[in-house]
Amino acid sequence: MSDVSGDTAMRTGRVEAFSDGVFAIAITLLILEIRLPEKPGHHLWEALVGLWPSYLAYAVTFMLIGMVWMNHHRMFHHIRRADGMLLALNLLLLMDVAFLPFPTHVLAEAITEGEGSGAAAVFYGVILVIGGIFFNGLWWYASAGHRHLGDSITPAEARALRIRWGMGPVLYLVATIVGAVSAIASLCLYVFLLIFYFFDMRPRTR
Amino acid sequence: MSDVSGDTAMRTGRVEAFSDGVFAIAITLLILEIRLPEKPGHHLWEALVGLWPSYLAYAVTFMLIGMVWMNHHRMFHHIRRADGMLLALNLLLLMDVAFLPFPTHVLAEAITEGEGSGAAAVFYGVILVIGGIFFNGLWWYASAGHRHLGDSITPAEARALRIRWGMGPVLYLVATIVGAVSAIASLCLYVFLLIFYFFDMRPRTR
Amino acid sequence: MSDVSGDTAMRTGRVEAFSDGVFAIAITLLILEIRLPEKPGHHLWEALVGLWPSYLAYAVTFMLIGMVWMNHHRMFHHIRRADGMLLALNLLLLMDVAFLPFPTHVLAEAITEGEGSGAAAVFYGVILVIGGIFFNGLWWYASAGHRHLGDSITPAEARALRIRWGMGPVLYLVATIVGAVSAIASLCLYVFLLIFYFFDMRPRTR
Amino acid sequence: MSDVSGDTAMRTGRVEAFSDGVFAIAITLLILEIRLPEKPGHHLWEALVGLWPSYLAYAVTFMLIGMVWMNHHRMFHHIRRADGMLLALNLLLLMDVAFLPFPTHVLAEAITEGEGSGAAAVFYGVILVIGGIFFNGLWWYASAGHRHLGDSITPAEARALRIRWGMGPVLYLVATIVGAVSAIASLCLYVFLLIFYFFDMRPRTR
Repeated sequence: MSDVSGDTAMRTGRVEAFSDGVFAIAITLLILEIRLPEKPGHHLWEALVGLWPSYLAYAVTFMLIGMVWMNHHRMFHHIRRADGMLLALNLLLLMDVAFLPFPTHVLAEAITEGEGSGAAAVFYGVILVIGGIFFNGLWWYASAGHRHLGDSITPAEARALRIRWGMGPVLYLVATIVGAVSAIASLCLYVFLLIFYFFDMRPRTR
Repeated sequence: MSDVSGDTAMRTGRVEAFSDGVFAIAITLLILEIRLPEKPGHHLWEALVGLWPSYLAYAVTFMLIGMVWMNHHRMFHHIRRADGMLLALNLLLLMDVAFLPFPTHVLAEAITEGEGSGAAAVFYGVILVIGGIFFNGLWWYASAGHRHLGDSITPAEARALRIRWGMGPVLYLVATIVGAVSAIASLCLYVFLLIFYFFDMRPRTR
Repeated sequence: MSDVSGDTAMRTGRVEAFSDGVFAIAITLLILEIRLPEKPGHHLWEALVGLWPSYLAYAVTFMLIGMVWMNHHRMFHHIRRADGMLLALNLLLLMDVAFLPFPTHVLAEAITEGEGSGAAAVFYGVILVIGGIFFNGLWWYASAGHRHLGDSITPAEARALRIRWGMGPVLYLVATIVGAVSAIASLCLYVFLLIFYFFDMRPRTR
Repeated sequence: MSDVSGDTAMRTGRVEAFSDGVFAIAITLLILEIRLPEKPGHHLWEALVGLWPSYLAYAVTFMLIGMVWMNHHRMFHHIRRADGMLLALNLLLLMDVAFLPFPTHVLAEAITEGEGSGAAAVFYGVILVIGGIFFNGLWWYASAGHRHLGDSITPAEARALRIRWGMGPVLYLVATIVGAVSAIASLCLYVFLLIFYFFDMRPRTR
């Protein structure tokens, strides 16, 4: 059946467009997890201010997904060949990203309620660590023996990206461990990570 | 009125892009069906672990939609002409795919509650079988007499794909029947099917 | 400030892509309006069967949006120039389409509950009539004096489309009036309209 | 590590496509915030009419997001170079736009309930003001020294756009202050602003 399977290419451009769609939808669905308590009435302003953990968790997850999206783009800029394993790893990464609205909601609720915030921060962090592992697994698989890459990147550059991107799950793991003690402290770590990331980027030409 | 209807082509590229959008949105909406029980408080960790049927159903449906998306792409790579019947069949397929978040939620709830999981697994499976029938109906219609296909595929290859894709609804039917007895067993069958599918794919060039 | 406003074109291709996105999202959000009653337990199968009005309303709205999407494509195939009025009319049309999940839910609920189904069917129909008016308003504005059209269509063909598309809101109005008496009868009318529409389409080349 | 970061461009075309996705999703999610009161039964028509604040808030936010989307397009038509700061500012803008379904829901609820509508209108307005600040921050950053712009725009035109777009947050601020006194009056101001905006646009060629 190999001649049947081989007759048409899953073009990597379409994989990228599909992935972009999932990133854009997951990032926008985050808002649906923010809900007012029932009938706040004339205490509305206090209720809105009291939702600050939801706003903070929303902002952090939004920017984290934005960061993963940018790195995903960069990765697929170099990928020229897609096979079933690569597509499966990419779907696993997207599955993790699309899952994020749930732990974001759990974390915000737990901080607001003042109960279970440690468990919620660990849950949130674990999903990020798993996402980071899928992301790096995708890159290791794609760059192993330069098998799925084109000539837009040298083997040495591909190895350098392994180290750079490999730092991601390690940093998430640190934030997860910190989260077991203090959910707020782990959110602050994510904010620092995001600020560092966006300021570190070089200008690029279209 | 035929001259009026015939004046502009529904380009198949746009049909594909629209379909991609529906696939990407349906796959990402799955997460909205996962909800924590009210106020789990300091038993949060147990509540999160207790949601494992939701995570499993989420993962299986996510990967199944991903698999359908990949095969849909492959099909439209060969389709060159679209008419009302073809567009209607494609919309029916998308209607089935976009419906999946609901049976996924029903199945996860039933397993969690420990009641009605057989009915839920059959409901879930029936939606997959119907989707498989629409998918194959689309391909049979498009490939009948090679009428809507281009020269990227030979009639013999088109027939081979009929057999390959025709296995889909049969396998779903088996999982549906198994599901009547054990919902977990049917979910395991879907996992095996997915693993087999992704490992069977050949590498492709961009 | 006219030189400032005029410096860049709102390309109609991007208007179309954006509109496609709204169509795809609205069509996929429909499923979120289908919900099981609380804890159906071992009566799950009856509960699932009892939701048939939701499935019917889902299917009808899904196919109606699909039909509008196809006609929208066809319209924009001929539109070459966009100004503020045209973009505003297009946004009004999208606003109506994106609103449809709500009356769909209201209609399904009313039929299930057995109360208020007349009001719900009229509400549903009115939103379709308004959408039809925006759609035709868009085409009348775009085709008036052939002002926004290119040479892919003659003025006579543009006038023929006015008549063809002008039938839409009239048919919706009939279904709305029927709906005041019987919600089910109006849903059947929409099904007939859809079948007629999809079978009437001519084959087209890519 | 600068050689590693610099190896691939974040093409502004993809930033625009991703942003378009977020705009389209946010605009379509608005409908999910409209909900009927429980079991309106045979008073359904009154219940549907009583939701007019939700319809008004839906329409205003829909058209405001549409307006921001159009201006965002126009801005990116001129942007040729993207760096981390520009991408971060763009993500902050999208974060604000994707947040809008929540204050829209809060505002509609408060007007319907007749309590807290002042606070809700101020909350809604503040989110618009912040969005306007991010939008203008993005343009100031991109146009400073013409650093990120191409030759599709002159420095004088870029300055003229600063003034034009700079009026946005000022007008939103006025509507926010008015909203503290009357939520309805502030919604009327947004409607006037939208009408003025769409009629002021010049025709453009594809």
